Parts: sequence; C-alpha cells; structure tokens
Amino acid sequence: MTSAASPAYRRLGVEERRRQLLDAAQTLFAHRPPEEVSLDDVAEAAGVSRPLVYRYFPGGKQQLYEAALRSSADALERCFTEPPEGPPTERLSRVLDRYLAFVDEHDAGFAALLRGGSVAGTSRTSAIVDEVRRAAAAEILFHLGAERPGPRLGMMVRTWIAAVEAASLIWVDEGKRPDPAELRDWLVDHLVALLAATAAGDAETADVVTRLLGRERPGGPVGRLTRNVIPVIGEAAHLL
Amino acid sequence: MTSAASPAYRRLGVEERRRQLLDAAQTLFAHRPPEEVSLDDVAEAAGVSRPLVYRYFPGGKQQLYEAALRSSADALERCFTEPPEGPPTERLSRVLDRYLAFVDEHDAGFAALLRGGSVAGTSRTSAIVDEVRRAAAAEILFHLGAERPGPRLGMMVRTWIAAVEAASLIWVDEGKRPDPAELRDWLVDHLVALLAATAAGDAETADVVTRLLGRERPGGPVGRLTRNVIPVIGEAAHLL
Repeated sequence: MTSAASPAYRRLGVEERRRQLLDAAQTLFAHRPPEEVSLDDVAEAAGVSRPLVYRYFPGGKQQLYEAALRSSADALERCFTEPPEGPPTERLSRVLDRYLAFVDEHDAGFAALLRGGSVAGTSRTSAIVDEVRRAAAAEILFHLGAERPGPRLGMMVRTWIAAVEAASLIWVDEGKRPDPAELRDWLVDHLVALLAATAAGDAETADVVTRLLGRERPGGPVGRLTRNVIPVIGEAAHLL
Repeated sequence: MTSAASPAYRRLGVEERRRQLLDAAQTLFAHRPPEEVSLDDVAEAAGVSRPLVYRYFPGGKQQLYEAALRSSADALERCFTEPPEGPPTERLSRVLDRYLAFVDEHDAGFAALLRGGSVAGTSRTSAIVDEVRRAAAAEILFHLGAERPGPRLGMMVRTWIAAVEAASLIWVDEGKRPDPAELRDWLVDHLVALLAATAAGDAETADVVTRLLGRERPGGPVGRLTRNVIPVIGEAAHLL
C-alpha cells in the first residue's frame, strides 16, 4: 500500500501523504509520552524529511500530536458502538473488550494524556478527552434506555466512566495485570453494583435496573454477582 | 491580625509577608481558573505592589500558583485524617463532609486543576495531585485494615477515589446539587457496593468486608443500603 514507509520518497497525493504522516505520528504517540517523540522521529518513521513533515503540519509537533489524538479519539469512539441487542452486560463486556484492546495498543500515550501535566496537554486536548467521555456516557445511557437521565443516574454513569479510566491507568502501570478478561468482568460487576446501590435511592435508576434485569440471561454476570453477594449480605443481617 | 490586607503597606517579617501573599493567592486561585488570576490581582488583594510580589515570588504567577496549590494540598490531606474509632461508614462520612466543604471552598480552582489543559498545569502540579490521591488511598486502606493491599483491593480503592473526584467536578458544574449530605451518602453507598461486589471475587476484600460489617451499627448506612438493595436482588431471582 502507498501508505507504508519506504526508504526513497514515493510520490503520494496530498491526502495520502498527510494520512501517512499521521499514521506514523499516531503509532509513535501511542507508545511514548509526547515529550519523548520528536518531529525527527515522525519524519524517520514515515521515511521522509523533516521539512516535508513541516510542509504538511506547519504547527510542528503540537499540531501532529493534536491531529493524532483526534484520530485516536475517533477510533476509540467507534469502539463504544454496540447494537442494542442481547443481555446488556454482554454488550458492555464486548465494548470493554474493545476498549481494553485500545488501551493496550496506546498504553504510554493514553497514560500520558489522561495523567495530565504534559507540555502537549492544552485546552484543545482536554476538550477531545471530554468529548470521548461524553460519547461513552451517551452510549451507556442509550443502552440503559435513559438518554436524558436525571441528575443521579447521569452522575452515576459519569463516575463509573472515571473509575474505568482510573482502572485502565493502574492496569497500564502494573504491567497490564490482571488479564484483560478479568479486569473487564470486574468493571462490569462494578457497574452492576453501582446500579443496584443507586437504584436503592433513586426511582429512575430503579426503573432502569428492573428493565435491565428482564433482559439478562440466567447464569450470566448479574446472576453470578448476585449469588456471590448474597453471603456478604447475610453477614450484614445484624445491621437490618 | 497582621496577615490582613491593608491600604498602606504594613511592615511585615519575611515569613509573614510570604504567608500573606500566599493566602491572597490561594483565595484567588480557589475561585477562578489560573488563567483568570493575574499577578496584579494578587498584589491588589494583598494590598501591595506588583514588584513586592515578584520579590517574594521571582517565578511570578506560576510559582505563586504552585505554592498556593502546595498549601491547599496540605489542607486537603489534613481533611482525610480521622481516628480509627466507631463504625467505618461514619468515619468515612465525616471525611467526605470535610472533603466536600473543601471542594465547595475551592470550586473553580479545584475544577480547573483536575480538568487539566490549563496553562498552569505542569508535571509538578500533577505530582501534587497524585500525592493527594495517594494520601487518600493510604487513609482508606488504613481504616480498612489493609495497609498493604493486594492488587484488586488496591485498584478498588483507587477507582473509588477517581469516582469521588469525578462526582465532585459534576457537583461543582451543576451548581452544587444535590445537597452535600445527599452526595456524601451516595458516595458512601458507592464504596459499600463496590466493596461487596469486589468481595464476591477477592478473598482479601471478603475478609475486609467481614471485619467492617462487625463494626457497623444496626440501622446505619450499611443496614439501610442492604435493606434497600434486597428488593433489587429479589428482581434478579430468575437469573440465579
């Protein structure tokens, strides 16, 4: 394909060349914090000269970083899309599998971005991160059948997303332990537990939970969690 | 007191003057994003000249911002300290009350700091934020009797802290609704639910939960949550 790097310059159309440079930048920024990526690295990875990179990205490294981030954010948002069919926890598991694969492929860049304090972090990069968070929240609320949630349910979803981000950063820091499937199951349990606790005090969330439970499969994650939580609740009997 | 601003310069000792400037900066940075605070604002609030501010803080606004952040971080960490006595959820409620009062007093500055993308955000400011998060996690783990937690329990505590931060930002954005006491109770429920769900698959967390339940009071928050969650679990009976 024309977008592959080659030792001698190949004549590419403007869009093709831009895409090639962006692909090279995206790969570099995925695996290193932006501080550790230079314009020379991008030129070298794309097999072109530094002036050529500047011709396409006159704003230099910052412009390339933001363009690569834009492109990664679009890819991440596509991971969230899931048809509204089957048990909701199975849909969520599929989305989380794609999300964790994305985190795995963008480890150092993802961590540097979310951790903040990078010289490449600006109000524009923060706006892109916020947009991804909003897209994640909108997708979850769509599957919960609550596209215009009340304040408690809206806060619940957004805090769970923050918890998922935090868990992903810890996961990257700790050498990607545990296994992604185990982390995914715990994140699903986390949301189910939070839904149950929030339903306990919020009528809208209680309705959502009733609808969700009607769509779950016997023996699925909700059944497993419920079975395992019942003994814990038994220990709380003296508090009732 | 000598630290109050006065129209005419008052002769203050070096430490006193530094403290006075820092207090003025801290108040300004608490209620506005750093972009909207100028060195002139600090000078005016302290009732001194701009050159005098520079004499104490030659690094200008960035140095003042970081010094004010350091001082606020110390104040926040002091909020976390709670004697290990009485029901754990009551201890947690007291800490959260102090934490939410801190957020209330530092609303715009707190939001700008955690949101990132500010020109004043550097690796140093990020390090201070991370230190506060670590202090919060250490305090919770101390009360859970698990100062050296395994990976699952450690991740659980850190993700809950991230959820609390996210909830605080939403709370500030949404005009500080709901009432802080209501938000605090929901955050306590959130942690209890998360502990129960995590205990379902992790032996260390299960031990922690058993110990905690033994220290709770009948009719306290765990009893209330358990009572309210039982009907939700009833609805999941077909999944068992």
